[in-house]
Amino acid sequence: MTKNISGFSKLSKEEKIDWLSNNFFQNPTDAVNIIKQYWNENQALQNLHDDFIENTITNFYMPFGIAPNFLINGKEYVVPMVTEESSVVAAASLVAKFWSTKGGFKTTVLGTKKIGQVHFMFAGKKADLEKYFQENKTELFAATASITKNMEKRGGGILDIELIDKTDKLANYYQLHITFETKDSMGANFINSCLEAIANKFRNDEIEIVMSILSNFVPECLVRAEVSCKIEDLGVENPQKFAEKFYQAVKIAEIEPYRAVTHNKGIMNGIDAVVLATGNDFRAIEAGAHAFASRSGKYTSLSHCTIDNGIFTFWIEIPLAVGTVGGLTSLHPMAKMSLEMMQNPTAKELMQIMAAAGLAQNFAALRALTTKGIQHGHMKMHLQNILNQLGATKNEKNTLIEFFKNQTVSHAAVVSKFNELRTPKITWVDFLDESFIRQKLESLSLDSKPIFGLMNAQQMIEHLSAITKIANGNWQVDVFVSDEKSATRKPFLDTENELEIGFKPNLLAEEPNPLQFESIEKAIDDLIFQVQLFVSNFNENPTKTVVHPFFGELDFDYWKKFQTKHFTHHFKQFGLI
Amino acid sequence: MTKNISGFSKLSKEEKIDWLSNNFFQNPTDAVNIIKQYWNENQALQNLHDDFIENTITNFYMPFGIAPNFLINGKEYVVPMVTEESSVVAAASLVAKFWSTKGGFKTTVLGTKKIGQVHFMFAGKKADLEKYFQENKTELFAATASITKNMEKRGGGILDIELIDKTDKLANYYQLHITFETKDSMGANFINSCLEAIANKFRNDEIEIVMSILSNFVPECLVRAEVSCKIEDLGVENPQKFAEKFYQAVKIAEIEPYRAVTHNKGIMNGIDAVVLATGNDFRAIEAGAHAFASRSGKYTSLSHCTIDNGIFTFWIEIPLAVGTVGGLTSLHPMAKMSLEMMQNPTAKELMQIMAAAGLAQNFAALRALTTKGIQHGHMKMHLQNILNQLGATKNEKNTLIEFFKNQTVSHAAVVSKFNELRTPKITWVDFLDESFIRQKLESLSLDSKPIFGLMNAQQMIEHLSAITKIANGNWQVDVFVSDEKSATRKPFLDTENELEIGFKPNLLAEEPNPLQFESIEKAIDDLIFQVQLFVSNFNENPTKTVVHPFFGELDFDYWKKFQTKHFTHHFKQFGLI
Repeated sequence: MTKNISGFSKLSKEEKIDWLSNNFFQNPTDAVNIIKQYWNENQALQNLHDDFIENTITNFYMPFGIAPNFLINGKEYVVPMVTEESSVVAAASLVAKFWSTKGGFKTTVLGTKKIGQVHFMFAGKKADLEKYFQENKTELFAATASITKNMEKRGGGILDIELIDKTDKLANYYQLHITFETKDSMGANFINSCLEAIANKFRNDEIEIVMSILSNFVPECLVRAEVSCKIEDLGVENPQKFAEKFYQAVKIAEIEPYRAVTHNKGIMNGIDAVVLATGNDFRAIEAGAHAFASRSGKYTSLSHCTIDNGIFTFWIEIPLAVGTVGGLTSLHPMAKMSLEMMQNPTAKELMQIMAAAGLAQNFAALRALTTKGIQHGHMKMHLQNILNQLGATKNEKNTLIEFFKNQTVSHAAVVSKFNELRTPKITWVDFLDESFIRQKLESLSLDSKPIFGLMNAQQMIEHLSAITKIANGNWQVDVFVSDEKSATRKPFLDTENELEIGFKPNLLAEEPNPLQFESIEKAIDDLIFQVQLFVSNFNENPTKTVVHPFFGELDFDYWKKFQTKHFTHHFKQFGLI
Repeated sequence: MTKNISGFSKLSKEEKIDWLSNNFFQNPTDAVNIIKQYWNENQALQNLHDDFIENTITNFYMPFGIAPNFLINGKEYVVPMVTEESSVVAAASLVAKFWSTKGGFKTTVLGTKKIGQVHFMFAGKKADLEKYFQENKTELFAATASITKNMEKRGGGILDIELIDKTDKLANYYQLHITFETKDSMGANFINSCLEAIANKFRNDEIEIVMSILSNFVPECLVRAEVSCKIEDLGVENPQKFAEKFYQAVKIAEIEPYRAVTHNKGIMNGIDAVVLATGNDFRAIEAGAHAFASRSGKYTSLSHCTIDNGIFTFWIEIPLAVGTVGGLTSLHPMAKMSLEMMQNPTAKELMQIMAAAGLAQNFAALRALTTKGIQHGHMKMHLQNILNQLGATKNEKNTLIEFFKNQTVSHAAVVSKFNELRTPKITWVDFLDESFIRQKLESLSLDSKPIFGLMNAQQMIEHLSAITKIANGNWQVDVFVSDEKSATRKPFLDTENELEIGFKPNLLAEEPNPLQFESIEKAIDDLIFQVQLFVSNFNENPTKTVVHPFFGELDFDYWKKFQTKHFTHHFKQFGLI
């Protein structure tokens, strides 16, 4: 049956969820419950979030954390971070605190230029195109007047329009390469609107516009962040050694792409967390940053390190085209709040905060990698997450954290250890320990109340005897257990599991048997005797087997396993263990 | 005062929020309310989410949408997408539906190899190092036995360990380059644990380990997705032309980095949405994808297009190291649900779904760009968001959507137009229109009740006359309005605002003046006369100014502005307009 559907976007949210849960989930009710438990009870707020995208069915929670103690150009910041990855916020906080005592981060915006292009095909003479472009350049600016009016009031607008010949790369392919200043807005909508207006003005019978679109490659929208201190202030045991190893790690990232990609990934852990928290577009930032890292023709590190005259310096240069107005920045209440907690920064200030967060992250990663390795911290958080999922108590957490200090943390290993912890230890009754058995059973009287079942104490003792007699061959039970049944039942005796309360093979009478002995003491004596006989019989003939009325043919070992479970079961019945 | 804080991570969530709101917000109570309105009322669930990272104060809502109708290798999927960007889910849904009638997406996993490296320094003879490596290679595998045991059960593990000489790039620098198969897990923890174990085994007095870490550059963990159909089935008006322009757009992305970066960014819009929805790590995916795009030494497009014998084919090859077990995939209830709605795919299946989502996104973007441009759709969603934020009603939304069909959408423009819509239109009284004035005022009697104020109808008419007399110089008012006061008051006359109800300059008596005329009719005659005089006086001497007792020195234009507001104010007082 097909799950293809038409007009899906026109359905209400409830109808969409109905279709989804009924077509793609084994238990639709559970699915709907999970989806709805994430709805905000404030309907207006939920509507606001639903309308950000299409076909929204619920909210995906990303943890919103904060990293205090960022000192950037002498100003104190708390940095909002949205990430699903553990250790990122902790690392940022630690490193921010560390550098706050050493002058903090020094940051500079190196440029804010943004770029858009009109891509077009022109098969005529290049000189004619150049003439047409020069003659119409003023008109191209004019065509955007209604769009640029407000941006110009804020000091932004179109910086320049250039004609670029790309015919050496692709026949007939030219560009209008246009540069923009978009002040505090990221500017994507502004730039694209300008480009479309320019393209409309520019097109003619010979000029075929292919597309008009901003570029996320923004090497001139660049920010630099730096930390620096005397080597002896690096706050580790052997600071000279640490500085050199750190320097080597950065050098490796500069020359080895396999490492550079991961190195930069770590930087982006810090930057994207702030990008997300402020409602900016992380795909744009990621594309721009990694393309910048590859601009030389070889993918390389975005951060660099020097050691000069005893001074350790570590810095980053990264393109960051972000906004503090427009887009989701003020529409998403938490994005707005992120900006407010950073004292409503300009786009330039935000670039600097992000660069500092990226550099902090990179410093933390390299410090961990070049000293104790990163698995230590990662695994601690990973373990924490698994324990939370399992609903471990504080005590259980402490026990397992202690246990996994020197063990590899895997999901399976933690679950298994956790289950072990939760399973109460069973104290098995040693039915061969005569003095223990006698002492326990002698504490019973005819008034002793069983915790479960109908037997009184003496009936229970005589029942243990009766079953032992079967093993001893002294009680003929007219039963036959098929090999098939035995094969499925017998393995139970190999497990650590107890006989369940209420377990009652068919062969046992509904009502307890009438008493055979005149007192509990006599019954105990008989039981002890039967057990002694049980041992001596099997010792005489170690390979013999006796049919158990439920488990089938059992040898000495299996009979002992059974007896252990059986005695334990009935001792528990009377609270003896 | 410093905001630097020590021991922040040790504070409770409430204490962290207190510190944040009191130190960084103008209105701490508002801030706390916004933070808490995003908490889930299920405390256990909230704790689970809080513990994913550190210093969590609340949840950042990312919209969770679904894109139905993905047909991939003959199987129907609904694809979960988490993104803050509008149009992404809509585009994916539209394109999935479109291709579902043309055979859908054909996808193949080209490789699943993952990579980790031990980076180390060795200053001795290379031959010695090689010998040491060969002699100890088996031991290196053995060192990971306890870590790889479970992975090997699932068919994964370490594939190979190679010694690589990098001394041509950096003195003394070598690597152990290690390849892994991690099956359904992304494998970061597994790989890093293996690497650290290998490094510990490998190190000796001459080998200094710099760091051991997986690589996010995974060119051999690769997936391909393709769509294809006859050109005439492309479902547009001029399919041949469309196919050619689409082809050109892809070629441009192949040869022009400024375009390629944005082209690939669009692909990642689709992929990251699924990465987020399934609890995978988008920074890792982004780093791997963009580094792959730059592997030739020139940053280029990840997707490609051919037109051959009337067949249009469009495909992507992209490295995607993702997991469907481990990490957050099952810890985050919505990530778990995402996997369940895709029928719990293997990591290989998930790679294929993601690649299809990326290709769909790219197809949608190129189709829009090469036809009507992307601003059309973007702006519609942007407008929708702003209207939601403003709390626009359905009617207001429709009006403004209609209005902005042919207007540039900017936040400021929408807010201004919205406010205009909300502000009731003021009908200004034309006090120079004698017949209108007479007709309206004649409808009044001494019984007419004012809507506000103490005057009766005739007192009101005589009051309008009295003020007009001031303009005419026929009523001496002993007032002086300083230039400073006039300068702050006069600009009001330029606004579209009305005189406020209850507006009463000091010069007016608390009680209305005694009546001057014997009837309303006589009072009206006098008012009409004074207005005629007002016009003729100013016409005789167009440059003259007369002091208004509240607004100061006014010329004819400003007196007319005042009279308009004043007449309107009093006509409203008696419900005449």
